[in-house]
Amino acid sequence: MTRAGCLNQGAERKGGHSVAAINVGLIGTGRIGRMHAQHLAFRVPGARLLAVANRSAEAAESCAAESQVPAAFTEYQRILDNPDIHAVVICTSTDTHARIIEEAAAAGKHIFCEKPLDLDLARIDQVLAAVAKAGVKLQVGFNRRFDSNFRRVRELVAGGEIGEPHIVHIIDRDPQPPPIEFVRCSGGMFLDLTIHDFDMVRYLISSEVTELYALGGVMVDADIGRAGDIDTAVVALRFANGAMGSIDNSRQAVYGYDQRVEVFGSKGMVAVSNKKPDTTECSTSRGVQSALPLHWFVERYTDSYIAEMRAFIECVQEDKPPPVTGLDARIASVMAHAASKSHVEKRPVKPSEIDTTMR
Amino acid sequence: MTRAGCLNQGAERKGGHSVAAINVGLIGTGRIGRMHAQHLAFRVPGARLLAVANRSAEAAESCAAESQVPAAFTEYQRILDNPDIHAVVICTSTDTHARIIEEAAAAGKHIFCEKPLDLDLARIDQVLAAVAKAGVKLQVGFNRRFDSNFRRVRELVAGGEIGEPHIVHIIDRDPQPPPIEFVRCSGGMFLDLTIHDFDMVRYLISSEVTELYALGGVMVDADIGRAGDIDTAVVALRFANGAMGSIDNSRQAVYGYDQRVEVFGSKGMVAVSNKKPDTTECSTSRGVQSALPLHWFVERYTDSYIAEMRAFIECVQEDKPPPVTGLDARIASVMAHAASKSHVEKRPVKPSEIDTTMR
Amino acid sequence: MTRAGCLNQGAERKGGHSVAAINVGLIGTGRIGRMHAQHLAFRVPGARLLAVANRSAEAAESCAAESQVPAAFTEYQRILDNPDIHAVVICTSTDTHARIIEEAAAAGKHIFCEKPLDLDLARIDQVLAAVAKAGVKLQVGFNRRFDSNFRRVRELVAGGEIGEPHIVHIIDRDPQPPPIEFVRCSGGMFLDLTIHDFDMVRYLISSEVTELYALGGVMVDADIGRAGDIDTAVVALRFANGAMGSIDNSRQAVYGYDQRVEVFGSKGMVAVSNKKPDTTECSTSRGVQSALPLHWFVERYTDSYIAEMRAFIECVQEDKPPPVTGLDARIASVMAHAASKSHVEKRPVKPSEIDTTMR
Amino acid sequence: MTRAGCLNQGAERKGGHSVAAINVGLIGTGRIGRMHAQHLAFRVPGARLLAVANRSAEAAESCAAESQVPAAFTEYQRILDNPDIHAVVICTSTDTHARIIEEAAAAGKHIFCEKPLDLDLARIDQVLAAVAKAGVKLQVGFNRRFDSNFRRVRELVAGGEIGEPHIVHIIDRDPQPPPIEFVRCSGGMFLDLTIHDFDMVRYLISSEVTELYALGGVMVDADIGRAGDIDTAVVALRFANGAMGSIDNSRQAVYGYDQRVEVFGSKGMVAVSNKKPDTTECSTSRGVQSALPLHWFVERYTDSYIAEMRAFIECVQEDKPPPVTGLDARIASVMAHAASKSHVEKRPVKPSEIDTTMR
Repeated sequence: MTRAGCLNQGAERKGGHSVAAINVGLIGTGRIGRMHAQHLAFRVPGARLLAVANRSAEAAESCAAESQVPAAFTEYQRILDNPDIHAVVICTSTDTHARIIEEAAAAGKHIFCEKPLDLDLARIDQVLAAVAKAGVKLQVGFNRRFDSNFRRVRELVAGGEIGEPHIVHIIDRDPQPPPIEFVRCSGGMFLDLTIHDFDMVRYLISSEVTELYALGGVMVDADIGRAGDIDTAVVALRFANGAMGSIDNSRQAVYGYDQRVEVFGSKGMVAVSNKKPDTTECSTSRGVQSALPLHWFVERYTDSYIAEMRAFIECVQEDKPPPVTGLDARIASVMAHAASKSHVEKRPVKPSEIDTTMR
Repeated sequence: MTRAGCLNQGAERKGGHSVAAINVGLIGTGRIGRMHAQHLAFRVPGARLLAVANRSAEAAESCAAESQVPAAFTEYQRILDNPDIHAVVICTSTDTHARIIEEAAAAGKHIFCEKPLDLDLARIDQVLAAVAKAGVKLQVGFNRRFDSNFRRVRELVAGGEIGEPHIVHIIDRDPQPPPIEFVRCSGGMFLDLTIHDFDMVRYLISSEVTELYALGGVMVDADIGRAGDIDTAVVALRFANGAMGSIDNSRQAVYGYDQRVEVFGSKGMVAVSNKKPDTTECSTSRGVQSALPLHWFVERYTDSYIAEMRAFIECVQEDKPPPVTGLDARIASVMAHAASKSHVEKRPVKPSEIDTTMR
Repeated sequence: MTRAGCLNQGAERKGGHSVAAINVGLIGTGRIGRMHAQHLAFRVPGARLLAVANRSAEAAESCAAESQVPAAFTEYQRILDNPDIHAVVICTSTDTHARIIEEAAAAGKHIFCEKPLDLDLARIDQVLAAVAKAGVKLQVGFNRRFDSNFRRVRELVAGGEIGEPHIVHIIDRDPQPPPIEFVRCSGGMFLDLTIHDFDMVRYLISSEVTELYALGGVMVDADIGRAGDIDTAVVALRFANGAMGSIDNSRQAVYGYDQRVEVFGSKGMVAVSNKKPDTTECSTSRGVQSALPLHWFVERYTDSYIAEMRAFIECVQEDKPPPVTGLDARIASVMAHAASKSHVEKRPVKPSEIDTTMR
Repeated sequence: MTRAGCLNQGAERKGGHSVAAINVGLIGTGRIGRMHAQHLAFRVPGARLLAVANRSAEAAESCAAESQVPAAFTEYQRILDNPDIHAVVICTSTDTHARIIEEAAAAGKHIFCEKPLDLDLARIDQVLAAVAKAGVKLQVGFNRRFDSNFRRVRELVAGGEIGEPHIVHIIDRDPQPPPIEFVRCSGGMFLDLTIHDFDMVRYLISSEVTELYALGGVMVDADIGRAGDIDTAVVALRFANGAMGSIDNSRQAVYGYDQRVEVFGSKGMVAVSNKKPDTTECSTSRGVQSALPLHWFVERYTDSYIAEMRAFIECVQEDKPPPVTGLDARIASVMAHAASKSHVEKRPVKPSEIDTTMR
């Protein structure tokens, strides 16, 4: 009989040579934090989740129990103080991101942080400066880049399959609106929802947006309008390489999570349709019926969340640049602010109007 | 033995009672004129194509022979002078449309005319006034309204299947650019190509565009740019009912004629994919391959051209309003001019800036 | 002004040189006869439909009027006696096919005949002998060979795209059963319905069936059983080249005309799905709904009927072998008889048991 | 700070009341055993994998390390002897299944065993008797029943969506043949591969096969033929409820794992297409290309393997009958033996000829 070691699975999977496990602390055990905790505990080879923290002891302990984490704290500083911990995963509310990143960087921890880094651009710049000064890695949670659909589109575009890209179109519609309390502190739909698409267009066609025009409206829920936000939008885009595009957003697609992109170019076009739970087609006298798209972000994007966390652990292990950087997050934020300005001022806006460093 | 009558098929198809055949003259026997002639001769019940006209005797006679038409003229006035002819189908070049419509109206003929009526809005207004004064019918050739795909989308939207429309998206890409000579006299891509989409959005969601913003560029062929036109465009739209939308155009989709629409609403979404010549899927070690979309407008839209001509003959026979009116054509032209202005002035434009009667 | 000639469209379409029009007489103006008459009159270049015949004068005259045919007879011999007529199209009931073919052959007419030639194999052999002796062409109405879907599958298989064929599967389901009176004189489902599939498997994989096993049952309508027939079947097949296959039939698919095939081979697989009237997909909270398949043979197979008639006229004009021969019809009949025997005797049957000439 | 417990995630997830964790030992750490170990360790709430066993110490220890299992043995009896272990999962080679099940039953362990229980029917009966006598649960590894596609088809059929089932068709093709050594001891393709489909048809339409006719051949690899087996088959089926069906098998589909079913009935039809890694469609001038099906059983069926193991743990926890019983396994084996006999004797065979208890 042999007593098996305590390493997480896969720690020794890297070909012949052994790779050191990365010790991780996770801060914030809300819905998305618990999901990341489970992935780090059970599905990310090479990660060892040593501690979780939440202001609520009950939430922290429940997450720890669920994911077999040895320690649960109410003070996240306990994680930052632990010299055995190499990396932190920040899943707290947006208004705390900047501060915790700065403290984690000062403590020499590598950092994964959910998007957005902050609603304020100047604050983002402070954060990025702190990270740069500390020399730690910062990866931001644009998980969709790790989805097999969007990744494949990028591969095909980057591989020249469709020639020079001319037009990109993104459809990004939530299955249902967030709670009004969330809407109030979200920074607005462009900063909360469309920001994913602003990152995605850059990812897909590897060119920067030079001008955008945003149409927005309240079509889904008048309360969202009363909270000062919109729930429906169309954004027209122009890119540095001459390409054009549009983004189409809604807070409520009653048929599920609508997540599609299409890139058209000089030699062809690549598009993705929605992912579904099964491929059944049922034909009756009333029509041919197939399954609805996967309904909510957890079922739709689980694989991409696992892949992004694996990529984060791998970039720490192998000392590589993170696949989604702080600069990526900053640019998407600039675009979101430009969209808000365009919507308010009813005119096309250049991102360089928002960010004087881009001029 | 019985000598069968000379009537075209279907003249007596209308239930029990007999319907008088409509005698038609066709003016202009270029590519699209010859196609309409074949349809009128062989595939439109109740139509009797009595004469065709073209400045070239050879072209007129060849068309007449091909479609078993008893008379071929070089002067279209011969058609207008014939009191037996009830209706004319005008397929000449755009710059002659206005004049021929006016003459035909004066001669008391019902009129089908290919789009656009004229490149100049004031001239369109003169034409519409002449038609109104003569009390004849005028149907304009927005054939796509008669396509089974778009017709079905409209039915579903109008029937409330998707609730209130929030976002409409149209993809309209030609398989290859027109000749440069055509580009030069076409009035520009917005007036030649996008005009179909301007009509289509109105048809699909039954609301008028109140503002649009047009991005355009030359991505396909620099010669098109040198001729003063664009070949690629994205147009963002806002409608009177609050809905938003976008149109995506290219003069060259190398994979065929890309003709899709999607309407998203409060209770669902309806979309159409391209029509294909066959439904084969071939799976090999290299991938799963299916057929390209139908490549050119004749193969793609033949059924819609037949249906539009049947609708024209029927509206004359039954004295009903035409399904596509001169006003429809005028509005689409206003939108096209607004798009050109937006593209040139790089700002959102309201159609009412173009058409002071809309204010 | 020019008086246009009376030739059907396209008679002069063959490149530069002129091709003589083929004068045709059509015998039998039931549902399928009227359809062929319309095609010959309006949609088959090079055909000139001079006369139609039907025992009912009213039916003959109505068909003639509908398709602008100059002559309508109650005696088909009037067609056979006319020396100007080069070819006949036989659309009468099955029990008259053999006799009319023999008479037409004796009169030196080229022959297109709907399937089956006869329910009795010995009688088919007499007919084929008469045709051979007369030296006229005989094409049999397996129209599905001319459908774009099945034709494309054959091209891909014959072109080696899927390597050596290993397994073929055909789904052939009618939308609704024929009238019981038809069932009684049809020769049974294998001879009426499955015979299309017996022809199709040979067409698709270019190898002969050496053994088959047929399961049949009455699942749709007990009256069909009382009339001595079946309405549902599965037939397993083995081919000379080692391939295997199965056919799946029903007299009633409530969702429409189900017409699919799939061929699997050493290098891949090719399959076709059903053709549909439109490509809409409507997503609501209840599911994603698309259109039903085209419902009935006329809407589903019109293009293939036109193509088969064009091929017939072309083989007469150009003195080429017909694309579907009397031997093809004979082999499909032998297979149908073998299936009936297998079903009755509940054992695998070799076609050579039916046809001693195949041993 | 709190030291979190050692329980696997989810042990306390069952609503309000706590459910006891099930302690599991796994026997056989080959490819499929290691997969089940990972699932039991990380993805099956309520399971606690305490030990693994393999004749090779290295294999056992490597599996234990990978899945954080506290104990690894070379003698599986060590697992049976452990009174803390409630259930065993048997993943050894087929020839050892019967013996280990008997010993595990004698030790009072609940049992999950991979299929088939044994190649010999009499031996299966002994095993089932031993299990019955011991009063333990036995679940057999027909994992496909837990796949979302097939489960959904069954739900729709059982829910009456397609009315009475008339015809079922299964396509089951491996991406590549197993090693020849495996072929030699597998009992033949019907017992190794088709057995899944024999179980599936029963699962889908809830009726027993009363007669089958099996065609088989060697089309893929002559070595398989030399080893006394076949690699390609078509099996025709008749069911007690009158329905018919066919199964289509190949050991090599070069385009991936082809896993489809279709059930046709009096009110409709339900079919599933293959699952794919992404939904991209790339249109170029050469065609429209989409992704190949998932290629191998691990990527295709991981979710079903997890679901079957969850179902096993749940049936032990809640003392419910297993969702796939020993009798299910026995019936599928009888069908496989009947198929072999049909193939050898070239005639339809009734399962009751194999199993006299079924008469």
